[in-house]
Amino acid sequence: MATFYSKRDLHFQLFENQNCLELLQYPYFSDHSKETFTLVLDAAEQIAEKSLYPIFKEMDRQEPQLENGIVKVHPQMRTIIRQFGADGWINAIFPYEEGGQQLPWTLHFSAGFILQAANYSASVFPFLTTGAANLIRSFGSPELRDAYTPKMYSGEWQGTMALTEPDAGSSLSDLSTTAIPTSNPGVYSISGQKIYISAGDHNACDNIIHLMLARIAGAPAGTKGISLFVVPKIRLDGTPNDVLTQGIYHKMGYKGAPIVHLMVGSESACEGYLVGEVNQGLKYMFQMMNEARLGVGMNATAIATAAFQTSLEYAKVRPQGRNLTDKEPHRPQIPIIQHADVKRMLLFQKSITEGSLALLIYCGLLADKISQETNSTKKIEMESLLDLLTPIAKSYPSEMGMQSTSMAIQVLGGAGYTTDFPVEQYYREARIHPIHEGTTGIHGLDLLGRKLLLNEGLGWKMLQKELQTTLHEGKLLTELNEISGTFEKYLHEFARNTAHILFKKNQGAAYFLADATLFLEGAGLLCMGWMWLKQAITAQKALNQGSIDQNFHLGKIETARYTVAYELTKLNGILERFTSTQYPTLDMKTDWF
Amino acid sequence: MATFYSKRDLHFQLFENQNCLELLQYPYFSDHSKETFTLVLDAAEQIAEKSLYPIFKEMDRQEPQLENGIVKVHPQMRTIIRQFGADGWINAIFPYEEGGQQLPWTLHFSAGFILQAANYSASVFPFLTTGAANLIRSFGSPELRDAYTPKMYSGEWQGTMALTEPDAGSSLSDLSTTAIPTSNPGVYSISGQKIYISAGDHNACDNIIHLMLARIAGAPAGTKGISLFVVPKIRLDGTPNDVLTQGIYHKMGYKGAPIVHLMVGSESACEGYLVGEVNQGLKYMFQMMNEARLGVGMNATAIATAAFQTSLEYAKVRPQGRNLTDKEPHRPQIPIIQHADVKRMLLFQKSITEGSLALLIYCGLLADKISQETNSTKKIEMESLLDLLTPIAKSYPSEMGMQSTSMAIQVLGGAGYTTDFPVEQYYREARIHPIHEGTTGIHGLDLLGRKLLLNEGLGWKMLQKELQTTLHEGKLLTELNEISGTFEKYLHEFARNTAHILFKKNQGAAYFLADATLFLEGAGLLCMGWMWLKQAITAQKALNQGSIDQNFHLGKIETARYTVAYELTKLNGILERFTSTQYPTLDMKTDWF
Repeated sequence: MATFYSKRDLHFQLFENQNCLELLQYPYFSDHSKETFTLVLDAAEQIAEKSLYPIFKEMDRQEPQLENGIVKVHPQMRTIIRQFGADGWINAIFPYEEGGQQLPWTLHFSAGFILQAANYSASVFPFLTTGAANLIRSFGSPELRDAYTPKMYSGEWQGTMALTEPDAGSSLSDLSTTAIPTSNPGVYSISGQKIYISAGDHNACDNIIHLMLARIAGAPAGTKGISLFVVPKIRLDGTPNDVLTQGIYHKMGYKGAPIVHLMVGSESACEGYLVGEVNQGLKYMFQMMNEARLGVGMNATAIATAAFQTSLEYAKVRPQGRNLTDKEPHRPQIPIIQHADVKRMLLFQKSITEGSLALLIYCGLLADKISQETNSTKKIEMESLLDLLTPIAKSYPSEMGMQSTSMAIQVLGGAGYTTDFPVEQYYREARIHPIHEGTTGIHGLDLLGRKLLLNEGLGWKMLQKELQTTLHEGKLLTELNEISGTFEKYLHEFARNTAHILFKKNQGAAYFLADATLFLEGAGLLCMGWMWLKQAITAQKALNQGSIDQNFHLGKIETARYTVAYELTKLNGILERFTSTQYPTLDMKTDWF
Repeated sequence: MATFYSKRDLHFQLFENQNCLELLQYPYFSDHSKETFTLVLDAAEQIAEKSLYPIFKEMDRQEPQLENGIVKVHPQMRTIIRQFGADGWINAIFPYEEGGQQLPWTLHFSAGFILQAANYSASVFPFLTTGAANLIRSFGSPELRDAYTPKMYSGEWQGTMALTEPDAGSSLSDLSTTAIPTSNPGVYSISGQKIYISAGDHNACDNIIHLMLARIAGAPAGTKGISLFVVPKIRLDGTPNDVLTQGIYHKMGYKGAPIVHLMVGSESACEGYLVGEVNQGLKYMFQMMNEARLGVGMNATAIATAAFQTSLEYAKVRPQGRNLTDKEPHRPQIPIIQHADVKRMLLFQKSITEGSLALLIYCGLLADKISQETNSTKKIEMESLLDLLTPIAKSYPSEMGMQSTSMAIQVLGGAGYTTDFPVEQYYREARIHPIHEGTTGIHGLDLLGRKLLLNEGLGWKMLQKELQTTLHEGKLLTELNEISGTFEKYLHEFARNTAHILFKKNQGAAYFLADATLFLEGAGLLCMGWMWLKQAITAQKALNQGSIDQNFHLGKIETARYTVAYELTKLNGILERFTSTQYPTLDMKTDWF
């Protein structure tokens, strides 16, 4: 029995609370069924339990090492990556004609959740390859696709995303890696440096295929002059391609996955192969970005889920203390799960992890529907909604996942701080997510400064409509009055105060965006209220229909009550910022620190 | 120049914002002066810079190892501990006749802040010895004192506090280590297990002196039957005392300090020497507990301060991005400290760390005054106030210190997640404080369930008086209207909502204490509002008198503005819990998780 995730909850999210089977209506997915979906999830659980979880701690203790120019990772990674390839995981979502299974992305994403919960470091290798291959097949020439993707799909070759440079992290427009055309059309000579490249070099695959952003000589400055290239470590003819690993980063967590610093073309002998059109690199990359960002949200949710499950098991069996009114020291101690404050710490984690999973699966289903939708109005509406939700579904799980894993440690007390239990490792691993794929601050600017107003606020309007629909459904169930009522109050206050923020645009971007990160945080809380009301509705309906799993459904309703009472109330402070005319963060001067 | 703390701020806190020189009025401290205090702080900075900070990372990388029964710590620890002894640090606060310097505890505490900021692991050794020696000299016989304290003061012997057992962590009343009287009066045969004993065994000292809690055979169950013993690792005659190190714990952070599991008397050959009266052990321990708990708050503050300073320096020099309205990619990037959201992240840290330091020094001065006060009414008033403030001054810095170090990582982005910078280590070290010396949950119960109502609420009344005094002072300065006004609003709301919580007592302890942790969190925020108003008053007065350090004082006022606008507003959500009649944490059932 897997202790790193709740199979019951994942199935609830996919089949009960939301209905992933509605995807079967689209021809692309129509060969699938509940059975094939369940098989996929079961297969993921099996790899997770048999191959990934057993080496979860080991991969942390035995960090990858750079020795004689070779990045050595855990010896089992080669077998594991090849198994992912052989079992069809890497190209599962692609069309039959490319060897794929036309699996909905949501199912791939949910299977990923299981793998990530079991061993985050091990899980990143195949997912990076899927993302890189997807760029080649979506935007590259058939020649590039045929040359590179088969061995990526089989797990023989690793794919990467090579964006960040020493002077260009959050500011991608400052990328300076250069591409100079050669006499061979589509072939460029690449030179520059790339840093923090995940799985950017290692000995578990035979080649590393970088999807690399670079600027063609003479291209416009800024974001408009960036192109995308395939840059293999080893060329198709077997000769090295002048991509050298300068060093590996030693990190606080997810140590099992090597993150490297690459010197590209330092001997002017690095070939890069243009993907698609010149100067369209960032656009291509960003078309994959929604999925990549939702992926980070899912990683964060998975790790926090594993930590929650560990602390839950511990709380059930660890005896300590007595009821508050029991002063009789002769009586045996009680399991700590019976203390109200421990239940609070567990409800906090349950609220964050299961609420995040609900939101991410909601986004996953949107992404699948968008990919198949033929009605252009509907498609644009769904795209706008997903664009708006993506920074939220990336950031809330990332930020709150840290706090959730911290709470898991707190449940264990001193034991949780030792390496005897996995929660300290989860805590270290969870810290990366608010940084990966755009920091929380960047996503705040993206949400408030871009997504909220895009298409005349279409995404925002779509979200309001969805929130109202769920609210309306909730109000029909009198048992949920307390939850619906509190959610309704915050929904209205949020909308009202958002109008205040929009007025600030007249004062200029600095004032408008000063609290963008708080707006993002607030939007995350609002979405949690939504997702928990939704789960409570599903659970209440199940109970009304004579649920055979009463405890589970009652737990959902109680956690929804917790969420509106303890988490949604945090909006009070945040909403006050929306209307404030005081700007200490703008007024503060560098010299005053 | 030390980069791990702000000397300017520490001097502000001690000499400007609060006046530690008022302690000179007491005869015990009267030989001291601003000069001697400054010398003490400068001496601490020197050891911190020359001896502690250089091995800060090393002590993390080279964890203590248990080899052939010997716990090996960093080789320099022996020299460092002896230097602490030789320089008079360990017994500095004790009377001249015991070889001490009659240094106010506040100064020792503030010097500790510097050492902890430089290297938390290294700093804990001498402080533990001071605490253990203080128990012996306060409650032990002159024979015990003369036999043990001199070599503890010299740093030859290590002192420890041995409380926790496998079945007694938060529940100290369940201690089961046994003491059986021997034919020799005052000498007992001790047996049991002690876990998580900090510096409980190591090769940097020649002996380890445990101040150990145990239950004398036949003593009452629960807290009333616990006695305190001196249990040396090696007896005075040089023979071993049957205290065996069963293992050392591998921890997420502060790895340089060994935490051990002890088997005591497994061969029935462990002698313990009774300290003071039988069955008074917990009382003695708790008389030292205020200082120990404030010490944890200070450790947390010190680590978060070091992380803040690191991120501040980074933010000043790291160029990334441009102003929001600057779309010109040819212009150079700007230092990230110029972005509003980065300033927010720095203000968050400045608010937490400097606010915590202010509160802790306030508590330190109270402790010193209490120790010298001869008027019994005044003494009880001050004691009640300090008792009330202690759980707050322990928990707010501990909980928020974690978030503050996390924010330091966020300022550095990906770089902060790597071991190239010290912030990831600070993050790992900071996680212990909400667990050490009573978890946050325990302190919540202590504050709301005990301290608030003690002596007919005397501590609470004293606090209200102090808060009103500061508010009154603030209102006299019109420049601070915004800060005083917001603080006043929350002060009144907090008092009003606390009355609501007290009404819940009628419903029973479970309802009354269900949100004790949130009450503690709220009280922490209220105290931060208080401490920042206090600092703003001091700064404004300095400015009005033509400060020669305008930037520093303006920074204090701006951070006070930030604190009331961004931190105090978090009270809105918490206060709503005080009045709520919904109790999901009580209603949730174990089987529903």
